[in-house]
Amino acid sequence: MTYCVGLRLQDGLVLITDSRTNAGIDNIASYRKLHVFEQPGERLIAVATSGNLSISQSVISMLTDGLAHPETGDIETLMNVPSMFRAAQLVGQAVRETFSIDGKALEQHHAGFDVALLVAGQIKGGRLRLFMVYAAGNFIEATEDTPFLQIGEHKYGKPILDRAVSYQTDLYDGLKIGLISMDSTMRSNLAVGLPLDVLMMKRDQMKAELSYRITEQDGYFADLRQRWSKALREAHLAIPPPPYRNGN
Amino acid sequence: MTYCVGLRLQDGLVLITDSRTNAGIDNIASYRKLHVFEQPGERLIAVATSGNLSISQSVISMLTDGLAHPETGDIETLMNVPSMFRAAQLVGQAVRETFSIDGKALEQHHAGFDVALLVAGQIKGGRLRLFMVYAAGNFIEATEDTPFLQIGEHKYGKPILDRAVSYQTDLYDGLKIGLISMDSTMRSNLAVGLPLDVLMMKRDQMKAELSYRITEQDGYFADLRQRWSKALREAHLAIPPPPYRNGN
Repeated sequence: MTYCVGLRLQDGLVLITDSRTNAGIDNIASYRKLHVFEQPGERLIAVATSGNLSISQSVISMLTDGLAHPETGDIETLMNVPSMFRAAQLVGQAVRETFSIDGKALEQHHAGFDVALLVAGQIKGGRLRLFMVYAAGNFIEATEDTPFLQIGEHKYGKPILDRAVSYQTDLYDGLKIGLISMDSTMRSNLAVGLPLDVLMMKRDQMKAELSYRITEQDGYFADLRQRWSKALREAHLAIPPPPYRNGN
Repeated sequence: MTYCVGLRLQDGLVLITDSRTNAGIDNIASYRKLHVFEQPGERLIAVATSGNLSISQSVISMLTDGLAHPETGDIETLMNVPSMFRAAQLVGQAVRETFSIDGKALEQHHAGFDVALLVAGQIKGGRLRLFMVYAAGNFIEATEDTPFLQIGEHKYGKPILDRAVSYQTDLYDGLKIGLISMDSTMRSNLAVGLPLDVLMMKRDQMKAELSYRITEQDGYFADLRQRWSKALREAHLAIPPPPYRNGN
């Protein structure tokens, strides 16, 4: 399982991914799910992956090695696409190409073609954008009304995002709320786990403001988890008990 | 969609169900999903339903009208089963009988046989028990280690239960935490909605301590939702911002 969340805020971009991968409960490993294509000051494009690891690894390989443009035949990679929109299209194209290679065989083994990706970043002169690419290669985009997108095990961590994140949220606050969302998910689904990879980019910088790995030894994250638990406990204790009496 | 949660605590039982039913987004109605079979002082058995409404209504009809015992041929209902274990078996039998009638036709229409039920209560001289019955008619039971069970849209409301509910939780606190869990679910999934039905039974009472419907006009629930939102906002604001700096 996987949980990745992306926030496209007024001041920039936050991406957080877990790194746990499992094929059954007795085959658990760590894989980096956050892939960064960066030419500092010129472009930063990040891709977060969820779903079948063989599919997402194939997609990332194709995006790194390049795909032929369907019309011009030119080889495109995330390092040379001219726009974020084209970047999302290219990721979709890589997903469709992987489907054409592996889709039928996966179906024969009842595995399903399960993949979803976040594609986020900015190219100099263009806009900061955040997309979610589906298994069919189509995609949607985050907006000011809906500034975050999630892939993988998204439900446990969604309530805090729904309540606390707006387009105006400060970048470091966004990171903090994203980490709380990650904590809720990790508590409820063991298949989402540390280490976490974090990427933050200020708007128009086209370089990582923060590229960081949170491990078991991370003091701040451990403290955040404790504080959040304590605050929730105090919050529900502070609410008065229901005054309901039997209406029968 | 549906969300129902049951808590089997040291002091008794709490059940909360929403009442929204939808067949597509343009066909939304309210149906009571909490069904109580009660002979005060002798037995109280409650059944909460989720899934396909035609299936759950068939199951409830069968449980009310009675099913023939597979060995003796005697007609059994939830008003005469001798134990809670037999009650869960009877619900499972009703699910299997509905499957034998409707399962194939539903499959032909790609509808799937989607149903899950909570069966909870106590019969005089027996133990207070809480079961979850699956679409296959098999079931599991809540224990002291895992004192709550959920059916329907369960993920959004699970983190607060995971953190706050233990077997020792007081009954009215359990109700309060259950309502917070319901609030989180209603905020993230529009297909879960008011009114809510609440049932509470003290252990060994075999009658409803509380049988209550929470509507849009309910002042306490509106206040709980506001207080919880405010507390969460204050809780994440009180956590210091991440001290991470770029490790690059």
